[in-house]
Amino acid sequence: MYEFTAPFQNPSGSPIRELFKYLGEPGMISFAGGYPASDLFDVDGLQQAAARAYQDPNCCLQYGPTDGLPRLKHELTNLMAHRGVPCALNEMLVTTGSQQGLDLLLRVLVSPGDVVLTEQPAYPATLQALKLQQARVVTVPVDAHGLDVDRLATLLASGTFARPKLLYTVPTFANPTGATITRERRIALLRLAVQYRFLIVEDDPYGDLRFSGDAVPSIISLAAEVEGSRDWVVHFASLSKIVAPGLRVGWTIAPAEITRRCVIAKQTVDLCSAPWTQAIAAEYLSDGALERHLPRITAMYGRKCEALCEALRSQFGDTLQFHRPEGGMFVWARIEGIDASALLQRAIDNKVMFVPGKAFFADRLDPASLRLSFAAPGIADIEEGAKRLRRAYDMAAADSV
Amino acid sequence: MYEFTAPFQNPSGSPIRELFKYLGEPGMISFAGGYPASDLFDVDGLQQAAARAYQDPNCCLQYGPTDGLPRLKHELTNLMAHRGVPCALNEMLVTTGSQQGLDLLLRVLVSPGDVVLTEQPAYPATLQALKLQQARVVTVPVDAHGLDVDRLATLLASGTFARPKLLYTVPTFANPTGATITRERRIALLRLAVQYRFLIVEDDPYGDLRFSGDAVPSIISLAAEVEGSRDWVVHFASLSKIVAPGLRVGWTIAPAEITRRCVIAKQTVDLCSAPWTQAIAAEYLSDGALERHLPRITAMYGRKCEALCEALRSQFGDTLQFHRPEGGMFVWARIEGIDASALLQRAIDNKVMFVPGKAFFADRLDPASLRLSFAAPGIADIEEGAKRLRRAYDMAAADSV
Repeated sequence: MYEFTAPFQNPSGSPIRELFKYLGEPGMISFAGGYPASDLFDVDGLQQAAARAYQDPNCCLQYGPTDGLPRLKHELTNLMAHRGVPCALNEMLVTTGSQQGLDLLLRVLVSPGDVVLTEQPAYPATLQALKLQQARVVTVPVDAHGLDVDRLATLLASGTFARPKLLYTVPTFANPTGATITRERRIALLRLAVQYRFLIVEDDPYGDLRFSGDAVPSIISLAAEVEGSRDWVVHFASLSKIVAPGLRVGWTIAPAEITRRCVIAKQTVDLCSAPWTQAIAAEYLSDGALERHLPRITAMYGRKCEALCEALRSQFGDTLQFHRPEGGMFVWARIEGIDASALLQRAIDNKVMFVPGKAFFADRLDPASLRLSFAAPGIADIEEGAKRLRRAYDMAAADSV
Repeated sequence: MYEFTAPFQNPSGSPIRELFKYLGEPGMISFAGGYPASDLFDVDGLQQAAARAYQDPNCCLQYGPTDGLPRLKHELTNLMAHRGVPCALNEMLVTTGSQQGLDLLLRVLVSPGDVVLTEQPAYPATLQALKLQQARVVTVPVDAHGLDVDRLATLLASGTFARPKLLYTVPTFANPTGATITRERRIALLRLAVQYRFLIVEDDPYGDLRFSGDAVPSIISLAAEVEGSRDWVVHFASLSKIVAPGLRVGWTIAPAEITRRCVIAKQTVDLCSAPWTQAIAAEYLSDGALERHLPRITAMYGRKCEALCEALRSQFGDTLQFHRPEGGMFVWARIEGIDASALLQRAIDNKVMFVPGKAFFADRLDPASLRLSFAAPGIADIEEGAKRLRRAYDMAAADSV
């Protein structure tokens, strides 16, 4: 009856959001979502920030500039400077979560059939956005040290595809693998971007959530070390994982020429992101509340990560393989010989959930992989969840005999 | 250096937002923006709603469902039922202002080259969105009784273009003309939609702001009177003009098959609109605050409209032609023989602003037309603004001798 555009003729929704229907089941323990822990929100600090923001009700209630409230942009440029990333106001755009930054960027840069590079495995909403934009996705494998930049160099030199528009990566505590690209690889990646003239799109929602190991500078901050490379980096950041997703405050740092076009796109997309939550975010940041909050949540996520890794080791021994991440929210695991989708069915029977790895692959999927998030459940639930996962595994193994 | 997609190779921003740079000038009186009056915001009522919403901090701070917070959708379905529009939950999508509803709908339905009908003159952000989607725009003229449906019937019968995907209209207190489509024309339009199988996209941000004349039912509510027509209506609504734009709360009512696809698009666009402001909106509506607020603002907008119309009549006599609207925020005017863009330059010199009509035309623009919004300035400023506009007109007339 209706004639839909090509990507919407028979579309499938987010494979992760599909699992949400099970979240409401009583007693369910979820390692599935990438949600931050609700009990770690700075409820009081945000309430105080909201009260201060409303002292200027008009700023909260009226339309705001498309590129973001000036007072928030001021705070965010300070935050980025603190992270070693000086940036101009016309390079920064406030977005409805960093997800919107990606959407705007793809609209401005990627035509149907254009080549886009992604790490593999990769964040499913990015894969979905690329599909809707009808990009040609070329995947680059990831190992324990993040994106395999040597492999990327080989691919680029092979001449088997057109000049790529961009490469999408979550270089620090990746979703889903938890891996962090080493400093050396970041420098090599910047050199490749300059040489082959593609944009590195650095999505950095988790960078502040380091609980062990040594900090690695962001790709955009390392651009200062590779001549001409800053023109080839776009950086996405967000308050969703470090403050609260309900603010829907993300931001993009990109060359001014690109930012200007993203602002024009945003004028027709939603005019502006909610000024009220932008004003709250600005007050929260100006108060120094984030600096006080971060050590508390990183310590807690560190304990949760340790609890999950210990529990998996204790329940599965060598049956389940994983690398322990140094930050973020995710453990990426493999159980040789299983199909994680079949395991999920048994897991749900046992009141535990995770995301089967196939959601994260654009091609050559690894059915034995799975993503476990330790962020949302409490320590006791993490331990119990690992036990249930073992029971589910035993049942799935029995099924397949 | 960068290769942008076709619509972004040399894009121009919103012609109205371009004017904002003058807003900060001391003493400027603006008839330009479509902003609601800041001094009419229900500052206390919204503060109370925000306090109640934060009694469930997790609902404000965590991610929410892509289609909207259930408690808000509950309130909005009640509101729509009160407006004579029963709708199911799977027909409703909460968006970041109704602007986002249009963006999602175009993505799902309009491919490059597809025919889209719009009233002319029309809302510029819609024209811009259609341009970015590379639609082929076919315009239908508007008169004092809204869209010229007879002319539309002739156009459709002419066979000079392919089956249109949709027709975009602001049928009640249109932006920019202030006109309202009559009941008879609405019924005729619904019949045409069924016959020619195109969607009527009814954008209704101002419908509640009636200060004189008799109510005309929305197109979607009249669909009950034309068999099969409800399948061909999409309705956009918003709290931006009746509560506060800073909430960024709009919603779409569309056939379930269309809504489902818009939800999938929204998953990749921004995951969800700000749950915090959604929760505030839900509390505000559940309290009955909107019903108490509306009579106050419609009375005030009525007085402002009257003040502008009287002042224009007194300053210009028959030189400036306009129809007095029965609601909304806009007066659409013509001054025979002038170029409104040249007039604007002189107006800015005299510290008064409006939007030249050309921004509202997709083709065959009328340079003598202009849009004046009476919503934001106070009564005294409206009267002074009209005097300044007359001075600007005299200067512009002298320029062109």
